[in-house]
Amino acid sequence: MNILVTLDRNYLRPLRVMLGSLFFNNPGAAFHIYLIGDSLTQVDLADLSALCGTRHTLHPLTVPETLFKEAPVVRYYSRAMYYRLLAAQLLPKDLDRILYLDPDILVINPVQPLYETNLGSFLMAAATHSGLFSGISDQVNRMRLDNYEAEAYFNSGVLVMNLAAMRHAVRAEDIYAYAREHADLLILPDQDILNGLYGARILEVDDSLWNYDARKYERYWMTSQGERDMDWVMEHTSILHFCGKNKPWSQGYMGYFAALYKHYQHLLERQ
Amino acid sequence: MNILVTLDRNYLRPLRVMLGSLFFNNPGAAFHIYLIGDSLTQVDLADLSALCGTRHTLHPLTVPETLFKEAPVVRYYSRAMYYRLLAAQLLPKDLDRILYLDPDILVINPVQPLYETNLGSFLMAAATHSGLFSGISDQVNRMRLDNYEAEAYFNSGVLVMNLAAMRHAVRAEDIYAYAREHADLLILPDQDILNGLYGARILEVDDSLWNYDARKYERYWMTSQGERDMDWVMEHTSILHFCGKNKPWSQGYMGYFAALYKHYQHLLERQ
Repeated sequence: MNILVTLDRNYLRPLRVMLGSLFFNNPGAAFHIYLIGDSLTQVDLADLSALCGTRHTLHPLTVPETLFKEAPVVRYYSRAMYYRLLAAQLLPKDLDRILYLDPDILVINPVQPLYETNLGSFLMAAATHSGLFSGISDQVNRMRLDNYEAEAYFNSGVLVMNLAAMRHAVRAEDIYAYAREHADLLILPDQDILNGLYGARILEVDDSLWNYDARKYERYWMTSQGERDMDWVMEHTSILHFCGKNKPWSQGYMGYFAALYKHYQHLLERQ
Repeated sequence: MNILVTLDRNYLRPLRVMLGSLFFNNPGAAFHIYLIGDSLTQVDLADLSALCGTRHTLHPLTVPETLFKEAPVVRYYSRAMYYRLLAAQLLPKDLDRILYLDPDILVINPVQPLYETNLGSFLMAAATHSGLFSGISDQVNRMRLDNYEAEAYFNSGVLVMNLAAMRHAVRAEDIYAYAREHADLLILPDQDILNGLYGARILEVDDSLWNYDARKYERYWMTSQGERDMDWVMEHTSILHFCGKNKPWSQGYMGYFAALYKHYQHLLERQ
């Protein structure tokens, strides 16, 4: 399975935890980890390569400067925000599918069923957190992002990418134009651009399985009439996503999944 | 390292989780698991033996009927309550040390430092939960159990046993006599007898490392002025003990360590 991660050095520790949990909870699977990140040192790369061991393979990619010479800088965001949107251009041409994963994720069960999602002509598969009444409604997002075809507002932390389709449909100049036009309205620029430009061509997958918002245990529990309790989550959920500002690697982070995350973090550091 | 477990069939699932977590978090260690339990079937034993794999060894022990012919039955407790107290008599004579572990335990870090505790002439090493203001005070326990030499009331869920010393000091007839005399005052009979008869000969070890009461995260945090937060626990604590009536394998169990326990439980069932 192909996995895409894009990051800067500040997320190296969580990236190790994410990858370590991915490897551990997918026994028997061999992963190709494609890494787009500017600021990693040779030591960082050697460390990640050691984590991959002999079963998995790390592929660090270099980003051609030319691809970004027209890119607008939206507020304080760096060009790294475009990496996942432009993944199809940056990845080797012989890859037709890849699973993008944010570093603030803990994988606790196999991801193969997600990876094998039948994408048809969809550009991607992704989950929405909007059934959880999170802040901004789908309706407001449709207006804000000027996209009335989109069914929902997708979270961009977990994306199954149909690279063949994306190579035809996703163009850097569209993305830059959209970013320029909507600069003042963008809240999470990469996620907003993804939804604004391509929301109607994203296949929805179940967030409680593939992009579980770790802040919202009670809401999943309530909206499922108590079915999705902690036993259910540990048995069925594959991807816990620690969305929001409070991150589980911070000292003092608490919550239902704090011990689980920090145990993995410690295991990865103990190695 | 030698490990002692005593159980009935109702605790087979938790026992698997306890042993699985012990093996996983003590990489490189080879364990000899001595099992005293009456009601296990051949299938149960084969299942536990499979869990031990090639690295660890299961030693099921048979209990001689004669040892218990004088044993009083205290209320609804079975003779199994005496197994851990009489471990030195039941185990092979060539063992000089063993670590007893309750099945309602999750091991999250190595146990070797505990195992190697310098016991001197102490019969055992154990932790007390009394610094956590749990229900009954040391003073009341000293009176109740008629033992004014005991420094503290020890929890009997984790015991490093000095078998050589116990073979001389621990006698079945003393235990039965004590059980008969104090029958009406015993709350947790095996733990009470342990403290009542041998409390003064038990070496105290740090419960926050070796017998962490999983119900009491906040109290450990408070009594340490915030030092023992979740990061500290995941890094330093080796043995999480799920004391009390609410057990982490129950549907609906919640708490700071619920996700961690249930994840291990699921891993052990996924195998």
